[in-house]
Amino acid sequence: MKVLDGENEYGMKIPHIFLTNGGGKTEEERCQDLSRQLQREIKPGQFICGHTPMREMADKYNTVLVIGGEGEKCRLVAEGYGFKDVVTPGDIIKHNAATTPFRKLTPEELANSRERNFDDVVIDAVFVFADSRDWAGDIQIMLDVAMSKQGRLGTRSETFDEGPPFYFSHNDVVWSAAHEHVRLGMGALRRMFETTFRDLTDGKGKLHTHAFGKPQVSTFEFAERLMQSWRSTEHGISGPPQTVYFVGDTPESDIQGTNAINQVADNDWYSILVKTGVYQDGTEPAHKPRATVDTVLDAVHHGIQREMRKKVVSSLKRDVLGQSECGGAETNPTIADDDMLVSV
Amino acid sequence: MKVLDGENEYGMKIPHIFLTNGGGKTEEERCQDLSRQLQREIKPGQFICGHTPMREMADKYNTVLVIGGEGEKCRLVAEGYGFKDVVTPGDIIKHNAATTPFRKLTPEELANSRERNFDDVVIDAVFVFADSRDWAGDIQIMLDVAMSKQGRLGTRSETFDEGPPFYFSHNDVVWSAAHEHVRLGMGALRRMFETTFRDLTDGKGKLHTHAFGKPQVSTFEFAERLMQSWRSTEHGISGPPQTVYFVGDTPESDIQGTNAINQVADNDWYSILVKTGVYQDGTEPAHKPRATVDTVLDAVHHGIQREMRKKVVSSLKRDVLGQSECGGAETNPTIADDDMLVSV
Repeated sequence: MKVLDGENEYGMKIPHIFLTNGGGKTEEERCQDLSRQLQREIKPGQFICGHTPMREMADKYNTVLVIGGEGEKCRLVAEGYGFKDVVTPGDIIKHNAATTPFRKLTPEELANSRERNFDDVVIDAVFVFADSRDWAGDIQIMLDVAMSKQGRLGTRSETFDEGPPFYFSHNDVVWSAAHEHVRLGMGALRRMFETTFRDLTDGKGKLHTHAFGKPQVSTFEFAERLMQSWRSTEHGISGPPQTVYFVGDTPESDIQGTNAINQVADNDWYSILVKTGVYQDGTEPAHKPRATVDTVLDAVHHGIQREMRKKVVSSLKRDVLGQSECGGAETNPTIADDDMLVSV
Repeated sequence: MKVLDGENEYGMKIPHIFLTNGGGKTEEERCQDLSRQLQREIKPGQFICGHTPMREMADKYNTVLVIGGEGEKCRLVAEGYGFKDVVTPGDIIKHNAATTPFRKLTPEELANSRERNFDDVVIDAVFVFADSRDWAGDIQIMLDVAMSKQGRLGTRSETFDEGPPFYFSHNDVVWSAAHEHVRLGMGALRRMFETTFRDLTDGKGKLHTHAFGKPQVSTFEFAERLMQSWRSTEHGISGPPQTVYFVGDTPESDIQGTNAINQVADNDWYSILVKTGVYQDGTEPAHKPRATVDTVLDAVHHGIQREMRKKVVSSLKRDVLGQSECGGAETNPTIADDDMLVSV
């Protein structure tokens, strides 16, 4: 990280932001964790977690059901994003304990959950903010809402296509954690929910599900917006970078997403795979990175060397051959670093 | 129930046993619960729950992983069945807490779980005894075992077809509980496990999964064996009944299973659907019962009336027309009652 901050042989300061599929806490809290891990200050303005792009939807929906995370944290995150009326599975179980026959709320959960009569409640959208701590209960409640008439708990649609939209903060079926083998993630929960919905409605129902997070292009577009504002406020640079280096450890989210936005973006998104995470050495990733290196530090050096070579070639062309480049000058490439540094 | 015990207009005592897909406790405990509910004594000798037929497999496997149920209860049930070495998910999490990143054992679970080194442990079979209280953790552990080399935790098979067999005590995707709508059951967990296994192994892996419980014919065959011994010890009747009346509330398990065993059994299995459970009035069940009635009492009367009519017809034929019937005389038809009386 010091290298990005200018401690490199060229004295270059390289704007960089962090993009993780993790979540379940406020961006402030996540940045405090990350700052402690990296032993330097990471600010919320340069940090995107799985659910960060959801804050742009706070105006769109009135009552939302928020799933996942520890205790009440995700309700607080959603309220911090400006969502006006936030329901949790705990509120629903407190109202009707028969909802989850094998799960009883702990005294703490019972105290935190809010008492309300769900007869009049219309759930406008469901947001899975972070990994569920109770798959059976959460999937049951998600199915109840998905099979309802327009989000009214307790009702059942005849056509099963009237449920509200479901948003997942990411799609990862597995992720790299402390265990020697990858662990199940939110993508597995989503798959379960969708499969069971299809089973229960005999394939006739229709779900409206969407995912944020990597590799969704919308998340990379959100990152581009955040990056621009970070470059402007922190580095005083206006206009987009010519090249964005994206360093990631997961071909299916990091590399796939970078390659996808590269197809549609005006600037060049350059994917670098590091070998420290989900990727297994010797395998051929389905999504091919532009470069593969051992560590994040190697990735940073790779980017810097590539930029310097481009500068040299460009100045040779200009000074020796008399050619001039079209487009904006490449100053301060931006490196968006990845969540493998943000393990939770 | 009193009607079955002889309080009917003909003074007939009708042998009957109970068959439920529920479980998670010993048969003795379940019978105590049921006796309290029905206010008469139900004995383990006339009671089959989802996992009862598993006791016939205790000799076949040495080390087994037992999933589901409350606390340590299913371990105790398995040990009571004669299984020699019973592992629980708690034992595995106690050995390596990274197994389930979002689940920590409670102090009580930590105390109950047994310390052991899983490096040398070979899991010979996995038994899902009752509904999982931690889907994410249990499915993760089931996948770890299914993807292992011959049941050694921590290993990964290259072919993903070396995992031990998985037995589920029943297959019900949904069941009728206190909630106004059906709730997810063990069949949904199984579907999730199988779907995720297919996803993670790119469809190349091979699982060995089996289910007990209704509508599996093997469970009805087990019921027939138990019924014979119950008729013999309790009623002093030798030989099988000519007609078995099966009263159930779920077309997919009760009626399907009864109709299926009727295809292969020597005697007549007569399916009666009652409207008090999963079945919704006005719908056409995929598996058609021989009779549909409102309540269990109606079902009992239906059976008695049918037997009496048969007796009258038979005596008319003998006395008036001089015909005689082939086969054993129909005395004491057996009514196997259903789990709707055993709601847990």
